Amino acid sequence: MSSPVPVAAPTREDVLSAHLGGKLSTGLTAPLDNARDLAIAYTPGVAEVSRAIAADPALAARYTWTNRLVAVVSDGTAVLGLGDIGPRASLPVMEGKSALFKAFGGLDSIPLVLDTTDVDEIVETLVRLRPSFGAVNLEDVSAPRCFELERRLIEALDCPVMHDDQHGTAIVLLAALRGACAVQGRELGGLRIVISGAGAAGVACARILLAAGASDVTVLDSRGILLPGRAGVTGEKAALAEVTNPRRLSGATAEALTGADVFVGLSSATLPEDLLALMAPEPFVFALSNPDPEVHPDVAARYAAIVATGRSDFPNQINNVLAFPGVFRGALDAGARRITEAMKLAAADAIAAVALDDLAPDRIVPSPFDPRVAPAVSQAVAAAAGDPI
Amino acid sequence: MSSPVPVAAPTREDVLSAHLGGKLSTGLTAPLDNARDLAIAYTPGVAEVSRAIAADPALAARYTWTNRLVAVVSDGTAVLGLGDIGPRASLPVMEGKSALFKAFGGLDSIPLVLDTTDVDEIVETLVRLRPSFGAVNLEDVSAPRCFELERRLIEALDCPVMHDDQHGTAIVLLAALRGACAVQGRELGGLRIVISGAGAAGVACARILLAAGASDVTVLDSRGILLPGRAGVTGEKAALAEVTNPRRLSGATAEALTGADVFVGLSSATLPEDLLALMAPEPFVFALSNPDPEVHPDVAARYAAIVATGRSDFPNQINNVLAFPGVFRGALDAGARRITEAMKLAAADAIAAVALDDLAPDRIVPSPFDPRVAPAVSQAVAAAAGDPI
Repeated sequence: MSSPVPVAAPTREDVLSAHLGGKLSTGLTAPLDNARDLAIAYTPGVAEVSRAIAADPALAARYTWTNRLVAVVSDGTAVLGLGDIGPRASLPVMEGKSALFKAFGGLDSIPLVLDTTDVDEIVETLVRLRPSFGAVNLEDVSAPRCFELERRLIEALDCPVMHDDQHGTAIVLLAALRGACAVQGRELGGLRIVISGAGAAGVACARILLAAGASDVTVLDSRGILLPGRAGVTGEKAALAEVTNPRRLSGATAEALTGADVFVGLSSATLPEDLLALMAPEPFVFALSNPDPEVHPDVAARYAAIVATGRSDFPNQINNVLAFPGVFRGALDAGARRITEAMKLAAADAIAAVALDDLAPDRIVPSPFDPRVAPAVSQAVAAAAGDPI
Repeated sequence: MSSPVPVAAPTREDVLSAHLGGKLSTGLTAPLDNARDLAIAYTPGVAEVSRAIAADPALAARYTWTNRLVAVVSDGTAVLGLGDIGPRASLPVMEGKSALFKAFGGLDSIPLVLDTTDVDEIVETLVRLRPSFGAVNLEDVSAPRCFELERRLIEALDCPVMHDDQHGTAIVLLAALRGACAVQGRELGGLRIVISGAGAAGVACARILLAAGASDVTVLDSRGILLPGRAGVTGEKAALAEVTNPRRLSGATAEALTGADVFVGLSSATLPEDLLALMAPEPFVFALSNPDPEVHPDVAARYAAIVATGRSDFPNQINNVLAFPGVFRGALDAGARRITEAMKLAAADAIAAVALDDLAPDRIVPSPFDPRVAPAVSQAVAAAAGDPI
């Protein structure tokens, strides 16, 4: 295990002063310096463009910015580790997300934070706004509402919609697991995988691992192993219990981890060292909670062949930014109306393929700043947009 | 009267190719090039900013982009001269408007086009989105819905709201009339003013002229002079009829124009030359319909001392861009919750004051590209934000 990568932690003052006035701005794609510029971009010229779109609404994708515009939508109910802090306080996070879309995916993006937590109202609002954007990145919406909200939006809107806390995380986790398998010469289908956490990320990670060929995935919530009929196993958890836990384990973390090959922490529940000792030899420990991993990576490294976290100051950072810019870029480039399971799997494979060039136990995923990632992901996603599923 | 200013008209191909991909983009106010940048703008640093706003929601104005962000909102029901072409086809116009906010006012701006024409639904949608922006510029909403919509939004939102087709036009018209009065040595209060058109712009122009001290304003709709009790004089028109037409004229354009000092055309109804001949000596003719003025400026110049139009290819262009960037900038700079009548009057005076430096019969308002205008307007508006009314 290599040493932590030193990154000077920004102070509170650094952070606040960097946020003065916000992090986003709008700009013009062409100058407006004289009467001719104005006559083209505004009246009377713009009337030609409006007439063209009125005659053929599909031309809006060609002659407006919507075809590369992602709305980053949140109600502020599950912001970072801060919980339900409301839409205003969530806005700096959403501005950051929009900035990442631009910096990593070359996409324009606007934060839309909503002063309602009612799923019907959020869907209705975005349906009314539909002509204003090209895709929706849902962000920091609390579970289990996030599952219904994403499903309803996908039904209601004829454009790509993705809840990044679910699927962005899942895509990068799958890429990391492929990387870890490649390093250790293991096969995904033969691994016993334990996911701690049945929230937005936990559910989506379990789903994508199953779709990718994992055969033994066990999921824990705060009450223990998900098993059909167990108390509290309803809704999304009940559906997940049906397709996970093939050995029909019951109990808590210890029962799940005994003999397991992979631990995926997505719950912020602490993982005691003695439970790590129950895992199979040379396990993979992905302690992804932020800012405090379920187990310190140095402790995990005493047991694990591969350790990953969500943090930038340790190796193997499982960072959504590896996925979402390219996923949305690829979906928009392809004119896709949906982000399908095939597109998500293709994104994970593309990230894993970039890592393969320089694979090592502390390099199972590329750096978030690797410029090859977003183009590779967007091309793979666009190519998969036509695939079934 | 000076000759028309030659401006090469853009071709349809020029216009369409200039609109490929739209006219707006989002950008970052600081680079995101390395792990430290990411730790400041996004996790974990951004959590400090979210915590600060959660503790004091007023800090959103300080640490997000909303305090300089104008939402350009339309339902596409009255777009340019094209009518009800819907939100998608209106979007190029709204992008242009957002571009003007940036180029002329230094404000960020996003177009929000709504797939509903229901006033309740539009209000509800913007109330839900309230944490996402700092001000609302309503645009191209049909009359008489626009009056109710603006009033309802002003009540519902604790931020500046202005329907630019009403008040932007009215502000610049008042500035132009002040300029014309200065050229000719006339007083606003002594003028007989006829406004042709009782739509969004006509109503607002009549209101601001009265607020500025005009004493004899007569308004025409398609059925003739507004007079209390006349057929079709209901709602906004009835309210306006009570405070205009002091000589209680009835009839059509001929009756209104006989002996009038000022014609303000805002209706696209043609003004025949023989009616011009009925006006008082040396009248002002403001034929503001676009793209076709109510009377050609060369014809009007045979009768009028001052001629103005809405077009960039003739002198004295009454262009909203002289007003709205500075009005919103001033309102946001002052932290105003409303755009008051006092702020609108101050904006008109500021525009007129800039024109005074170089006043002439063909220069009663500044050029839209005069860089002094927006700062002068924003300062005047911010200063007036504390005034009563």
